[in-house]
Amino acid sequence: MKRATVLPVLWLFSLCLLLSLGSFVLARPSPRPKSANFRKAYHDRLVNDRMKRQASSAPCAAPGAQAISAPKKNVWYGLTDEEAAAVTKWLFSQEDLNLTAAEDAGSWDNTVLLVELMLPNKTDVLPYLDGNGPEPTRYAHVVLDHRATTEPYYADLLVGPLPIQEGQGGGGGHGDYGGHGGHNWTHGYKRQSSAVTTWEPLTYPYTRKTAGRIRNLGADDDVALYDDWLYVVCADILDITLDLWGGSCLGLENDTIDVWGIDPVWQDDGIIRWDTFWNYPTTDFDAETLLPLGLYFKSNVTGRDPSKWSLDGWLYNDIFYPTTEAFRAAYYSPDFEKLPANVEGAWADTDQQGEIPPLDTVFPPITVAPRGSRYFVDRDQKYVKWMDFEMYLSFNRDTGMQLHDIRYKGNRIIYELGLQEALAHYAGNDPVQSGTSYLDSWYGFGPYAFELVKAYDCPADATYLDSKFYTAETTHTHVDSICLFETEANYPIQRHSTSKYVAVTKNIFFTVRSVCTVGNYDYAFSYEFYMDGSIHVEVRASGYIQSAYFAKNEEYGYHIHDALSGSMHDHVLNYKVDFDILGTANTMTTVTPVAVSQVYPWSDGKARNTMKLERATIENEDQGKLYWGANGATQYKIINSDYPNKFGELPGYRVLPSEGTIYLTVQNSSNLARAANWATHDLFVTKQKDTEPRAVHPYNNQDVYNPAIDFAEFFDGDSLVQEDIVVWFNLGMHHVPHTGDLPNTVFTTAHSGFQIMPLNYLLGDPSRETVNMVRINYHAGNVSEVNEFGQGEPMCSYDFKAAEPDFWGYTGDVVIRKFPYDPNNPYFETDSVV
Amino acid sequence: MKRATVLPVLWLFSLCLLLSLGSFVLARPSPRPKSANFRKAYHDRLVNDRMKRQASSAPCAAPGAQAISAPKKNVWYGLTDEEAAAVTKWLFSQEDLNLTAAEDAGSWDNTVLLVELMLPNKTDVLPYLDGNGPEPTRYAHVVLDHRATTEPYYADLLVGPLPIQEGQGGGGGHGDYGGHGGHNWTHGYKRQSSAVTTWEPLTYPYTRKTAGRIRNLGADDDVALYDDWLYVVCADILDITLDLWGGSCLGLENDTIDVWGIDPVWQDDGIIRWDTFWNYPTTDFDAETLLPLGLYFKSNVTGRDPSKWSLDGWLYNDIFYPTTEAFRAAYYSPDFEKLPANVEGAWADTDQQGEIPPLDTVFPPITVAPRGSRYFVDRDQKYVKWMDFEMYLSFNRDTGMQLHDIRYKGNRIIYELGLQEALAHYAGNDPVQSGTSYLDSWYGFGPYAFELVKAYDCPADATYLDSKFYTAETTHTHVDSICLFETEANYPIQRHSTSKYVAVTKNIFFTVRSVCTVGNYDYAFSYEFYMDGSIHVEVRASGYIQSAYFAKNEEYGYHIHDALSGSMHDHVLNYKVDFDILGTANTMTTVTPVAVSQVYPWSDGKARNTMKLERATIENEDQGKLYWGANGATQYKIINSDYPNKFGELPGYRVLPSEGTIYLTVQNSSNLARAANWATHDLFVTKQKDTEPRAVHPYNNQDVYNPAIDFAEFFDGDSLVQEDIVVWFNLGMHHVPHTGDLPNTVFTTAHSGFQIMPLNYLLGDPSRETVNMVRINYHAGNVSEVNEFGQGEPMCSYDFKAAEPDFWGYTGDVVIRKFPYDPNNPYFETDSVV
Repeated sequence: MKRATVLPVLWLFSLCLLLSLGSFVLARPSPRPKSANFRKAYHDRLVNDRMKRQASSAPCAAPGAQAISAPKKNVWYGLTDEEAAAVTKWLFSQEDLNLTAAEDAGSWDNTVLLVELMLPNKTDVLPYLDGNGPEPTRYAHVVLDHRATTEPYYADLLVGPLPIQEGQGGGGGHGDYGGHGGHNWTHGYKRQSSAVTTWEPLTYPYTRKTAGRIRNLGADDDVALYDDWLYVVCADILDITLDLWGGSCLGLENDTIDVWGIDPVWQDDGIIRWDTFWNYPTTDFDAETLLPLGLYFKSNVTGRDPSKWSLDGWLYNDIFYPTTEAFRAAYYSPDFEKLPANVEGAWADTDQQGEIPPLDTVFPPITVAPRGSRYFVDRDQKYVKWMDFEMYLSFNRDTGMQLHDIRYKGNRIIYELGLQEALAHYAGNDPVQSGTSYLDSWYGFGPYAFELVKAYDCPADATYLDSKFYTAETTHTHVDSICLFETEANYPIQRHSTSKYVAVTKNIFFTVRSVCTVGNYDYAFSYEFYMDGSIHVEVRASGYIQSAYFAKNEEYGYHIHDALSGSMHDHVLNYKVDFDILGTANTMTTVTPVAVSQVYPWSDGKARNTMKLERATIENEDQGKLYWGANGATQYKIINSDYPNKFGELPGYRVLPSEGTIYLTVQNSSNLARAANWATHDLFVTKQKDTEPRAVHPYNNQDVYNPAIDFAEFFDGDSLVQEDIVVWFNLGMHHVPHTGDLPNTVFTTAHSGFQIMPLNYLLGDPSRETVNMVRINYHAGNVSEVNEFGQGEPMCSYDFKAAEPDFWGYTGDVVIRKFPYDPNNPYFETDSVV
Repeated sequence: MKRATVLPVLWLFSLCLLLSLGSFVLARPSPRPKSANFRKAYHDRLVNDRMKRQASSAPCAAPGAQAISAPKKNVWYGLTDEEAAAVTKWLFSQEDLNLTAAEDAGSWDNTVLLVELMLPNKTDVLPYLDGNGPEPTRYAHVVLDHRATTEPYYADLLVGPLPIQEGQGGGGGHGDYGGHGGHNWTHGYKRQSSAVTTWEPLTYPYTRKTAGRIRNLGADDDVALYDDWLYVVCADILDITLDLWGGSCLGLENDTIDVWGIDPVWQDDGIIRWDTFWNYPTTDFDAETLLPLGLYFKSNVTGRDPSKWSLDGWLYNDIFYPTTEAFRAAYYSPDFEKLPANVEGAWADTDQQGEIPPLDTVFPPITVAPRGSRYFVDRDQKYVKWMDFEMYLSFNRDTGMQLHDIRYKGNRIIYELGLQEALAHYAGNDPVQSGTSYLDSWYGFGPYAFELVKAYDCPADATYLDSKFYTAETTHTHVDSICLFETEANYPIQRHSTSKYVAVTKNIFFTVRSVCTVGNYDYAFSYEFYMDGSIHVEVRASGYIQSAYFAKNEEYGYHIHDALSGSMHDHVLNYKVDFDILGTANTMTTVTPVAVSQVYPWSDGKARNTMKLERATIENEDQGKLYWGANGATQYKIINSDYPNKFGELPGYRVLPSEGTIYLTVQNSSNLARAANWATHDLFVTKQKDTEPRAVHPYNNQDVYNPAIDFAEFFDGDSLVQEDIVVWFNLGMHHVPHTGDLPNTVFTTAHSGFQIMPLNYLLGDPSRETVNMVRINYHAGNVSEVNEFGQGEPMCSYDFKAAEPDFWGYTGDVVIRKFPYDPNNPYFETDSVV
């Protein structure tokens, strides 16, 4: 046995020797001093190496966050399975709602679209968080899809209080859409708890007061639109689709062509659609948005009776034909120019292809946490604590993951931080690209926050949390869809060298991430926390672009494949950050370096060309729409003037773009009208109101001229000086796809970021608190001191292979039926946007 | 033996089981489906884990780049030790140069400041690189410090050809400063090789034609300025320094106060200095720039005779006193306001302090390359190859590390990429801050590219290269001062999810880095290369700020400590990137999304509010000064219109700011006059000329009204259409230091970056070539395929402790004497800016 163990050890020792000598043997063509010190260091190294070897045989720590109990209940996280089931059951018992279960419902039935926690009002939460106030009463936010009518509408309802308490008589409490229910909810911030659960139209968070009703322009999209209209149109021109593309779109199994169009539909003069044709991919790859076919048709789909809908024209090769007859006549005329189809091929597939670069098949560098996770998670309360940061997570249908009550060193700095909306505004010479302005919260980010791929989307040893959303009387759990992990940045956070010493501090930061794939695009949403007290909000985009057919549209994109144009579009993503700097009384102030020509007491009466700081305050909401401005000069910060520090400076946090950001290029968009007034500037400041919790309604695209939430209406002149203020900022990019976006856009170039950094918030840099630094004192080749500040040692052996994730364990979403509630029979089902 | 090995394996197996089950056991409050598939996956995992365990006992690979031979000799790298020694010896043999060895020289002797390789002309290099042209003839660039005169000057000389060939007669070849030597060098690009080595004034790379001479305003800075002036002034007011600050600055061992001032000195009316007093740190920390004392004095130091210099006034607390007498009289008047000193304390020290955050003493996450380095290095030729990128590195005194002949997939995309200059332009109500505009290449980045700290500045298993600079008849080798390493970004490069599959690709990128500490500031210069063909140029700043004394200067910074103002300043760093996209005939074009209101054939005659692309070409140098512009809308790209791709698009690379960048706030700076005309815009385009290789001369600060290189003169109207064009871009930040900059500025918030990304350069995204991706096909909880594309497996065990660097081996610079040449007696000596 001795021989058997000694031999490998010797072998390892030799290897190790080679390693530590390697840099000398290989790296130094020049002779090196052979001072006594040098030799001593060399000897020490040998001894050290041997000691290390002997001491380091233990395996490294298991990953996984440390357990902790959240200081408070997470009042934002969502309904429990039991609550969701109870509310759903209760809703179905309300006869006046006339609901049909989703699986039984047709286009003319009323269904339940959403059962979710209604986020409590900030004014109700703060007393609970910060004092001895009671836990806010829980309510459900319910969305019904009223389609049993010729004027279909969505209905936002508030159901509560929870848990469900049946009242006297029939089906429990009930409300109406008149806007004056039994409770004083008109302004939202005076909810009263009641013993009996009732429903009320939800109106207080919306700028438009229409009893929580929003018209539904898509009531027939799933069935009638296709069966009674689009497939009929397809059949009408079957000769042409067969001739041009060798395929059809008849709603049959062997269809090779898909048909769909603009979003939102035109709403200014009836309800108008423009649709176009797309080749279905012939493989499993999701490449359809790369396969447009270049023929467009216009439909007036006003009302719910398809027999009254009309086909109002065709467009092909930039030529408009007012009728199908006119188009067909032209098509069969001798000089009609037939354009080629876009056809799938390897160019559209994401699998490895092409020559493998040298050494690429060697397993690459990887980040690991050899001693285990250094953060705390309360999985029940979705509470996370890393170093001096702590926060709660929530998850909702419209916008996915959100962050709440972000505290730093025990003090809340942010009450709420999260995505509000993502707009992708296209343009083109064809009506489908021109008419496309996706407001993605319509689809919802929650339903598409897919299971993450371990070791790819986040490190294998990250902590993964589930998230849930409601749909069709079920809750779907996205398994492992939120990840938490620390990374060492590839640069230190601090360093300084002199001829006597060098001091460097590692930059270890913490990331909270979820990825949402809304149709063709994958958005990676990351929130990064740093040891200097700063927070980085980042979004990156990958996935498939939506492209245009290439035909006389050089002014709208590059020609990137056979008959393909990289359709230009702006991504604009709005975020809310509700700062609470040492309380809710905050002010946004600015500091701007400006060029000046100035005479000084010491300048001999001569003016000097130099610069100085201009300071200003955003006094009220009339001044609350802001641009980053020329040369990135203006610094925006949120301070609390009630707590000047000992030097008289006001503590705060600065906000700034850290990677490129944009606002929307299009002015007064014909597609969006008033539905995206949050996209017009780089950032906005408003007074916090319980009645303005969200910048948009997810159904703003259903009524763009009169949206349920018009962000512009938030700006009504309120004072912003030492008030509870909210900053809304936009990330995004002008995306003019080029060949490098094929097959997928890459995260490396499609990114946008925003930094939230302390500014005079503490009296010094808090990264000095970490022990993960080293100071080396040296002189004339001698090191006199190495101070590692008592930091931890890795002293272990990490088995990479064992740490590899098991990709065969990928499951997708787990579904639990809520009505009837059937918690013990989960099944798997994952849906993407189709 | 069997028992001894089986037991740990069993134990490891249990641990492993726990790991892989952990996420299920801990992460899932909800029940999971117990389908046959689920059970099968679970079983597979157990088997898998066991197999992994058994296979993974071998230790991981040794770090260190793979060896490779550069395809060509690195013609930029620098002189060999032998060449430097030979040139130095030859210079000292030229009697007309009247040189004195540095260690014997006083302020009135002529010395050799620099012996370096003269970078060959691009027109000479291209035939060598791309064809069968000869290796360019080597020349040395020599700078002499002519101080044996009342009108001292620096002399730039060209010495060559190399190797040294003595001519007939006396001391070899010789030249004169008349500008018409024996060779046709007037325009630089017609150098002729000659058998006999001669020296010539170097003029062709400079816009100012003064025979390579630049006046030296600092000829007496080391001795006379202090001994005959500053210490004398100090002695004059010893009563006041003792009374105010309890200290003195007399040039004695027990001095507690330092004295220094503006840079550059004022040059408009004689040579004027403003100096101020600083407390010396009482510890080893380099905190002096945090300890200003707030008293300033003006000196007219015109000429070399200190007896003719004059003291022209004092400033204290924003009050100007024209004479020492006036100042002293005021000082001893009853109502004189004495202000406190800035005194060192823990606030100014970078060592760990404050409460250690929770879990911080656990060893943190770390990036490692378990299977070894995946890139190639030719250490002799400083040639580096990573995946499809390859390049040569050089290193020079003025600007440190530079990159040359960057090729991607075999084609050069960039001929040269590197820093040109770094400006730190301060402002303030006091004359020292107001008068400070450091042009750091004056100090040089090369001499201050200190040894990197392994595992802190770069990963422990990075490849470290040395760099060299010449000073005082020695070459100093910065040991391990350039690092090369791969990192996995903390986000993938590509991903896409659907309900059927998920595909994700790792984002492994390659970094080349050096760190230069020019006095108080540490600049980390990184060049990152990505699998999508993009390059990221980044600079981050740490180290000590230069602060101002806090006295009536609220308009110039925050009050950040007792009597300390965070002195506002702009960092602007200029880089050159000489693109060669498929050859040297290139054009810069732009594409800008603009809002339009437009009628389309299909829009019923109605104008739609939308957007389109505006295209433009930078036709000539008159149009060559550019801003990024509002809303980051304009895309700048360098294309080659001679090689349209199969779709007619022009291949190129786009340039854009990826982290915040700035240009200089100050207009027509009184400090800089014409010395930094490269700082006025975000980017510039010029025609490449052998006579315009650098944007600045490092001694531009010696003659700011008539600098040796005035960048503005590059813009003389040359056509830029399908010419060899050069882009000069600025990184930087408006820095208004706040308390978080104490003790050091942190890299996390002080950063700027620039992205160079392919645009229609290839026909698709080249990151598809990597095997480091996974595609998982799944349905209803079943995984039907896991494709890992034949990627490498880590299959090894990594010993973290053994991989820890030995900080006791830190040496600093190794010095080799060049005159007399003494290569076998190296010694250690590291100098920082003092």
